[in-house]
Amino acid sequence: MKKIYTFLMCLAILHAAKAQDNKLIKASMNKVRLEFMLDAEGKPVYSVYYGEKPVIKPSALGFTLANDSAFDKHFELTGSEQTSVDETWKPVWGEVSSIRNHYQQVTIHLKQKDSPNRLMNIVFRVFEYGVGFRYEFPKQPNLKYFVVSNELTGFNMAGDHKTFWIPGDYDTNEYPYTTSKISEIDNRQLVASSTDIAVRVAPDAYAVQTPLMMKTADGLYINIHEAGLVNFPAMQLHVDRSNYQLTASLVPAPTGNKAYVHAPFKSPWRTIIVTDNAADILTSKLILNLNDPSKIENTSWIKPMKFVGVWWEMQTGKGTWNYSNDADSLDAKGQLIPNGTHSANTANVKKYIDFAAANGIQGVLVEGWNVGWEDWFGNWKENVFSFVTPYPDFDVKELTQYAGSKGVHIIMHNETSGSATDYERQMDTAYRFMNKYGYTSVKTGYVGKIIPRGEHHDGQWMVQHYVRVAQKAADYHVMLDAHEPVRPTGLQRTYPNWMASEAGRGNEYNAFSTGSKPEHETIMPFTRLMGGPMDYTPGIFRIKGYSNVPDRQVHTTLAKQLALYITIYSPLQMAADLPENYEKHMDAFQFIKDVAVDWDDTKILEAEPGDYITIARKAKGTSDWFIGAVTDENNRDESLSLNFLDKGKKYVAIIYADADNADWKENPEAYQIKKYLVDANTKLNLKLAKGGGAAVSIKPATSEDKGLKLYK
Amino acid sequence: MKKIYTFLMCLAILHAAKAQDNKLIKASMNKVRLEFMLDAEGKPVYSVYYGEKPVIKPSALGFTLANDSAFDKHFELTGSEQTSVDETWKPVWGEVSSIRNHYQQVTIHLKQKDSPNRLMNIVFRVFEYGVGFRYEFPKQPNLKYFVVSNELTGFNMAGDHKTFWIPGDYDTNEYPYTTSKISEIDNRQLVASSTDIAVRVAPDAYAVQTPLMMKTADGLYINIHEAGLVNFPAMQLHVDRSNYQLTASLVPAPTGNKAYVHAPFKSPWRTIIVTDNAADILTSKLILNLNDPSKIENTSWIKPMKFVGVWWEMQTGKGTWNYSNDADSLDAKGQLIPNGTHSANTANVKKYIDFAAANGIQGVLVEGWNVGWEDWFGNWKENVFSFVTPYPDFDVKELTQYAGSKGVHIIMHNETSGSATDYERQMDTAYRFMNKYGYTSVKTGYVGKIIPRGEHHDGQWMVQHYVRVAQKAADYHVMLDAHEPVRPTGLQRTYPNWMASEAGRGNEYNAFSTGSKPEHETIMPFTRLMGGPMDYTPGIFRIKGYSNVPDRQVHTTLAKQLALYITIYSPLQMAADLPENYEKHMDAFQFIKDVAVDWDDTKILEAEPGDYITIARKAKGTSDWFIGAVTDENNRDESLSLNFLDKGKKYVAIIYADADNADWKENPEAYQIKKYLVDANTKLNLKLAKGGGAAVSIKPATSEDKGLKLYK
Repeated sequence: MKKIYTFLMCLAILHAAKAQDNKLIKASMNKVRLEFMLDAEGKPVYSVYYGEKPVIKPSALGFTLANDSAFDKHFELTGSEQTSVDETWKPVWGEVSSIRNHYQQVTIHLKQKDSPNRLMNIVFRVFEYGVGFRYEFPKQPNLKYFVVSNELTGFNMAGDHKTFWIPGDYDTNEYPYTTSKISEIDNRQLVASSTDIAVRVAPDAYAVQTPLMMKTADGLYINIHEAGLVNFPAMQLHVDRSNYQLTASLVPAPTGNKAYVHAPFKSPWRTIIVTDNAADILTSKLILNLNDPSKIENTSWIKPMKFVGVWWEMQTGKGTWNYSNDADSLDAKGQLIPNGTHSANTANVKKYIDFAAANGIQGVLVEGWNVGWEDWFGNWKENVFSFVTPYPDFDVKELTQYAGSKGVHIIMHNETSGSATDYERQMDTAYRFMNKYGYTSVKTGYVGKIIPRGEHHDGQWMVQHYVRVAQKAADYHVMLDAHEPVRPTGLQRTYPNWMASEAGRGNEYNAFSTGSKPEHETIMPFTRLMGGPMDYTPGIFRIKGYSNVPDRQVHTTLAKQLALYITIYSPLQMAADLPENYEKHMDAFQFIKDVAVDWDDTKILEAEPGDYITIARKAKGTSDWFIGAVTDENNRDESLSLNFLDKGKKYVAIIYADADNADWKENPEAYQIKKYLVDANTKLNLKLAKGGGAAVSIKPATSEDKGLKLYK
Repeated sequence: MKKIYTFLMCLAILHAAKAQDNKLIKASMNKVRLEFMLDAEGKPVYSVYYGEKPVIKPSALGFTLANDSAFDKHFELTGSEQTSVDETWKPVWGEVSSIRNHYQQVTIHLKQKDSPNRLMNIVFRVFEYGVGFRYEFPKQPNLKYFVVSNELTGFNMAGDHKTFWIPGDYDTNEYPYTTSKISEIDNRQLVASSTDIAVRVAPDAYAVQTPLMMKTADGLYINIHEAGLVNFPAMQLHVDRSNYQLTASLVPAPTGNKAYVHAPFKSPWRTIIVTDNAADILTSKLILNLNDPSKIENTSWIKPMKFVGVWWEMQTGKGTWNYSNDADSLDAKGQLIPNGTHSANTANVKKYIDFAAANGIQGVLVEGWNVGWEDWFGNWKENVFSFVTPYPDFDVKELTQYAGSKGVHIIMHNETSGSATDYERQMDTAYRFMNKYGYTSVKTGYVGKIIPRGEHHDGQWMVQHYVRVAQKAADYHVMLDAHEPVRPTGLQRTYPNWMASEAGRGNEYNAFSTGSKPEHETIMPFTRLMGGPMDYTPGIFRIKGYSNVPDRQVHTTLAKQLALYITIYSPLQMAADLPENYEKHMDAFQFIKDVAVDWDDTKILEAEPGDYITIARKAKGTSDWFIGAVTDENNRDESLSLNFLDKGKKYVAIIYADADNADWKENPEAYQIKKYLVDANTKLNLKLAKGGGAAVSIKPATSEDKGLKLYK
């Protein structure tokens, strides 16, 4: 985040002084308008409009505090300020190389009318496509430490919108999405039946996670989430189904309270993105813009990459994480008796290194390398893994040397089993070990109930834990890919070494559960991905027929798996299938070899949540473009204008498409690859099979390509 | 604990095979008899007798498990074994140099009659003066991980005994003792009024802490506690006041459950010490004997010592722990503005080092040396202190050098404010810092509500934390003095670097609260001290008249403060008062200079809980004896036989006694010192003032002492 070239227009228009309590305060940008006032009881209330359409009807703001029962009303307005900001900044990596941050800011200064006259500010930022706001507790004599018992923030919707939701679970975001009206939200059945999710705690039948995606009957797209979640619990939304009112519901601490706060304090931002066009939801950088700039000074060691991994073979039952079948399976010397199925053995890892090196893949993730996997899950056990002790058949020294000689990095794996206390004890030791053996990135995991017992994955303490891990990793120049953390809120801007998270329902569910519907990947970018990159683990070529999970099938076509490299963004992007499966389709694998993981530009060509998404991206520092198109269970014909290409320039397009007879269910692995010359005038027709997709690479044509046919 | 010379008699009498469910199983040693049987419902029941007197009437055993609602009954006896052990071992330090461990052991093997046929063993050890028993969960197919929801162990007393109790509080043992009948126990008023105790959580009005001391109408002394508390919550006792029944009440986790257990598992020992003589309660080594031998191989670096400290001056308001008056009190450079009252400054610490060096005191504790004290208490704040960052006026390098040049060690202070998670993060760094600067011991502190939030000082997680700290300290060859931990249970045998704990109401309460009654120190050895040494901080010479706490007074005479060095044992023993207060009474301070902290032998000369205690101890590796005698609010004349001295040998006794007109309230600092020749035939008369005491040093006479008068 260094060397940002910024031009900042900052006009401070101070409206301070005169406090008129019932004054309506407004701010707008383009079609988006924010209104704020104190109601008759002195309660702060806001509303949001898009043109003349109400987006958020007058809704509550504020908190109830455990140590101040009167903090929810009787406020007076002591002043307000408006500021306009227009700046541009450059992310270390991302979907675009440069981000405009343009907003109108209103700061509302509130004070309790009665003693102890506590202060709270509300800061609104109005963007072209939405509003962000947060609460600030300035330094003040009568509110130093306080306990948030509830957040009152409301989002009163103007109608019974169509929503794409998952249950408001304190410990997981890995549910499949349900599409329903607000009035139909009820998570009980889904929670009860989702037995493949390790830990489920969803006490409120009418609570949903954010990002919550909605579509209104009159054509608005609304997305509610939060930005910059640090030192506070995650916000879920409680749904009043009769009145279409959503209310912030914070994930509790073991005490039942929500947050322990020390003023001065700024809450995370509550975000409302609103457009009349689904594509603009995906383009929005509102959440990133609301996050703080990088806290890491030197970011030169942070490098997006693709990786393969010793992982899918365990998911599909070919191998195991554990070295022995039982922690008690010991030989006469007290050593574990090997089960013969342990995947993370030196010879096998070398095969992955060889494959990666041969195909220009920079990383090899190895799971199951360290002791503890015989008895790691489901017992709320505090001391599970050592993060510096390999199994006897994993020669860390030799593998480091071998990978290094091939220009490949092994990616560390630290599964904590949810025991965050134990991970914190071992972190320094673990990261020193990574530095010693040349590991430049780590995948963490939190599969299991959290320790400290009573804490939740998405509560304040764990939110701080993930940040601590990102900071500690940065201290050691280690890139982070966090699995099972709280869902992201744009913190990748502040900690650009926190490259990706899982925090959602990844491709793995197609291996170990009944899977996800074909529409899943058309919803994810509008929900989970709004907060940040996801390690979704795309690239499965062998769609079904795994001997150990014969009843399982990835709900996709092979071509769609390629499209995901574009439609589901991550700077750490896995090619998740086994080398032997790729080797049968090296023509298709060429796309994965070619595709970038860091981008100068991104165009959302078409998008509709639940139906389809088509995205084109320009690889960083090149003239190459890549397109990904995915559809739901329906087939789809697309005609795409390539008018984003440089005018007058010829390009070679390689089209990786579903075969004409492809079908996610019956014939998923059938694909066709075609190569043409294209230019800015080309209208590219893509035929997506049911549950299918298409991927296209577009590179400037060279003299060698002259013989190619121009695409018509 | 190395080089133990042990002679072990081990007779295994196997009664296995024949399982007769209603069989009465007995074991006895001298007057103590244990009986065990399964009742008609298959519930395990035990009772204890002393001669023909019932000590524990038939009482319940076992647990309820969260994952097995039927675990409390329907057991069958599958076998039992009896063993006799008589061995002797040598503690690294202690009240005696050699400890006999002589017991009769019965192991009861129980099995659920019905599926899942889970197994539990109960192991009883019957000693000359009591019984210890614990539960063992052997490795078994159907009980691997389990959750203890309650312990059922009962202690049904045979009458409405006199008890010496403090409230069963999850977070503190710092209450004053109440003497009452069992039927009168009700902790509510005391809990409510004890506002000087930082954290009080005592939800059960009828719960008390252990060690619980009792005296029966027919002259028995009974003490109930536990031994070897690791990986389990502390046991408190719920009191059924009508039936005189005590029931184990475990301190809960934030979830409400009590313990998370992984079989094979052995619970802590439940201990019942019973005698017909109060002195034998204090002599008993039952609790130490039930603990595991040292886990530390090389113990040569563990050295008992006396110390002074920059501490009492803060307690009495002369100085402050904090360097600035407010965390926000910053100068233009953002540095804290000093308040001028910070005690842990280089010049002041040097004064203490000088005093220690001049008087043969080995250690100087310095509290308030590290940043964080401006805002450390009462806000359940997670990140409070740095354990490696001194205040600007504390020159750690210079002081290390200065202390070293004088042969004195500075004692590290790590107050955690209850934030155990943060201490665990910093522990390695903190201990490396100690090693670097030559600190050989650390005083830890846990003043405040525990983080992880919802955990308690005495719950399973914190119990493990204290053990982790002791282990980590041992790794770095650091001795530990833990303040505000769970009360000790003899773990100083297993971790002999865990020299002392506070875990009780120390002398400090006489400075910052209304204080403790004169009887307090006659109860402590029967209660808190039963589990292990206490850092009580004796040696206050200036009893009252502190200008900043003019209304406070230590409830003692000066002579009694000297006696405490004998009656309240600790291998880390503080001389707690200020050097300038000692300098006014260097004749009395001579006793503190002379007194030992490690002993070859100990004789309890007289004892009655709540009334008086007189103890003689023989300093390790010498022929010197030291006597301490304390009384309650009543004055007392004692006549002590010195028949423990070597026959035919002359000794010089220096008697530090209350002056004739001394009185704890009106004239506490009046004392007299007399010197005589004594021998094994001497009957020493000591006159203890109201709230007073006496101390005596006895050393072999030399030729120089020939002119001394023989004591008559």
